[in-house]
Amino acid sequence: MLELSKKALAMPSSPIRKLVPFAEKAKREGKTVYHLNIGQPDIKAPKQAIEALKNTDLELIAYSNSTGIQSFKQALVHYYKSVGIETSEDEIIVTTGGSEALLFGFLSCFNPGDNVIIPEPYYANYNGFATTAGIQIKTLSTTINDNFALPKAESFEKLIDKNTKGILICNPGNPTGTLYTKEELAVLAHLAKKHGLYLFADEVYREFCYDTEEHQSIMQFKEIDQHIVLIDSLSKRFSMCGSRVGVFLSKNKALINAATKFAQARLSPPTLAQIMGEAAFSAPKKYMNDIIQEYQERRNLLVELLSEIPGVKVARPKGAFYCIAQLPVSDTDVFCQWLLEEFSYDHQTVMLAPASGFYEDPTLGKTQVRIAYVLEKKALKSAMICLKKALEVYTK
Amino acid sequence: MLELSKKALAMPSSPIRKLVPFAEKAKREGKTVYHLNIGQPDIKAPKQAIEALKNTDLELIAYSNSTGIQSFKQALVHYYKSVGIETSEDEIIVTTGGSEALLFGFLSCFNPGDNVIIPEPYYANYNGFATTAGIQIKTLSTTINDNFALPKAESFEKLIDKNTKGILICNPGNPTGTLYTKEELAVLAHLAKKHGLYLFADEVYREFCYDTEEHQSIMQFKEIDQHIVLIDSLSKRFSMCGSRVGVFLSKNKALINAATKFAQARLSPPTLAQIMGEAAFSAPKKYMNDIIQEYQERRNLLVELLSEIPGVKVARPKGAFYCIAQLPVSDTDVFCQWLLEEFSYDHQTVMLAPASGFYEDPTLGKTQVRIAYVLEKKALKSAMICLKKALEVYTK
Repeated sequence: MLELSKKALAMPSSPIRKLVPFAEKAKREGKTVYHLNIGQPDIKAPKQAIEALKNTDLELIAYSNSTGIQSFKQALVHYYKSVGIETSEDEIIVTTGGSEALLFGFLSCFNPGDNVIIPEPYYANYNGFATTAGIQIKTLSTTINDNFALPKAESFEKLIDKNTKGILICNPGNPTGTLYTKEELAVLAHLAKKHGLYLFADEVYREFCYDTEEHQSIMQFKEIDQHIVLIDSLSKRFSMCGSRVGVFLSKNKALINAATKFAQARLSPPTLAQIMGEAAFSAPKKYMNDIIQEYQERRNLLVELLSEIPGVKVARPKGAFYCIAQLPVSDTDVFCQWLLEEFSYDHQTVMLAPASGFYEDPTLGKTQVRIAYVLEKKALKSAMICLKKALEVYTK
Repeated sequence: MLELSKKALAMPSSPIRKLVPFAEKAKREGKTVYHLNIGQPDIKAPKQAIEALKNTDLELIAYSNSTGIQSFKQALVHYYKSVGIETSEDEIIVTTGGSEALLFGFLSCFNPGDNVIIPEPYYANYNGFATTAGIQIKTLSTTINDNFALPKAESFEKLIDKNTKGILICNPGNPTGTLYTKEELAVLAHLAKKHGLYLFADEVYREFCYDTEEHQSIMQFKEIDQHIVLIDSLSKRFSMCGSRVGVFLSKNKALINAATKFAQARLSPPTLAQIMGEAAFSAPKKYMNDIIQEYQERRNLLVELLSEIPGVKVARPKGAFYCIAQLPVSDTDVFCQWLLEEFSYDHQTVMLAPASGFYEDPTLGKTQVRIAYVLEKKALKSAMICLKKALEVYTK
């Protein structure tokens, strides 16, 4: 009689979520759990952002304009200009996190039954937004052997069918840490133009690039600017994940007008997040430079320590704060649960994200985990000692 | 080649939005515009909520649990208990405003092509969420002549077809200010049970009841608790619209689990809003009592002044902070634009919401406007003098 919707039944439940009760149990048992499973940075937000909250003279929290507070949008325009992206306030919709930006994009561009091509492994929550919009995800495999480089144009073209309406990339990549080159992006731009596809680029980790690599934004391909949707967020950049403030950016006026109607229906993105965000952009360059330096050191340490563990293979990430590691186990879903449930070393254990959730075919990620290096180096080192000991026990 | 989705094309654009540029122009021309067009309260938020922001010791803003911060959910449970609603943290999902709660509900309960019955006039943004979920809204007319009382069971039953999966009410009503009686709600409970329908009650204005009327919550009908979805929000209650914090409440475990998956996909509701919300619940009873007293006085003044304007008919609202007024004009869309564009009295004018946006058939609301009494009494009085003068000029 009372049924749930087909979408509700189809909504994925992430393999990481399934581990949460085991992590809670481990903590209740007195274990220290190193959380390398989620992209929740431990870095402080810019003090300008926190001060903006503390010094507020607001007496009530009013709705903002549905597409965002004008002065915040101006700060965004200024920021994008500083990284070589020319835009204007009219091309920006402030959203409730990058999540909502992606949902508005899917809802505005695609009809139920359409499909979008995404290189895998990919951020698991794309599945949720695709299910919500009633679209399918078609995947192209990338592999740890070549650091998850973008597949060639021919591989994309083999997948494109009459229902293919877009390509979505995450750059730098979650969960891979891969940074696409200008040449790789040019392939995508060519495909978008040739096949009339929308090209979504999730650049929420755009600041997090290491080894003097510069981030290559999809926005530089001006000849296809009508095809591009830029998804952005201040969550990771300014350590304000819980504020919920993201960006939907497009130079396609019809698309902006369409997405604006979805924005209007939900009235307003969070006002306080925008106030914080505007203030955060006034932080000195040193704030961001120090963070990048810190993450780079963590990345170096993590890759070094992982490489020393027998049987472990790791792709050296060039951006974001994730890496994919291949472990000498047959099923990382089982191994990650075992880490929490049964293993401890000196009252410590590690929580990792099984990679099965990042692949369309979960068997593909069965021997891999995603590690988020969001802990300081000392904790990261202890976590890797733990992992090494655990693998010794587990593979014996 | 690049097309927008059918949903994007179908997304409604509210008649109020169309007036915004005219209001902005009027202000640039030096006119004072009394904004009675939107439910943005002018009342201060509880000082406890603002203090919670100002005294924050957060150094970064972390994601909260996808279904909300535990201590905030406990505060919600405590609040609901205080108004006679027994619930628990497991039955609550904290959402990004009532908007997201409604969207999660539609997505979890209904399939594309299903329909939901809503008495009209109704809150225009329900259309946006229905379009997003791919469902249809079927309307039952209520009229100003009997204060928009709920239609009888037979009227609902005439509308119910094989695709009808739910009924949605707003109580107290936006845009009508109507407060449903226990007997009216019992009719809905009966229908939900008899026909196996979900029963959504949008109770975001639940605190705003006047003349010693008590709010009757749908939650009291325990025999149909599996059918009920309560939509709530702190936006209006605590004057924190822009914080974006709402509630999805259901005693149906399967439904809560389904909605939780949509909540997980978007990671987290706004953390700061939850911190404010938890603090707001610690405000003394006097805070809310004073607000209700203030709105009641405004309501009394507004209804009195409207009644004195020749040709104006007004339904006396018993709750929320809206009323529907029938004006002696043939098209309130045109009239409301004229008010902003051409009229002024002593350099002042009024912005009202044409009621066409609140009816499925826009012609039904052609002679009506919604007036939000969200201005203090002095401004409200000036606004009504303006409206009276305007109607004198317009109908001459």
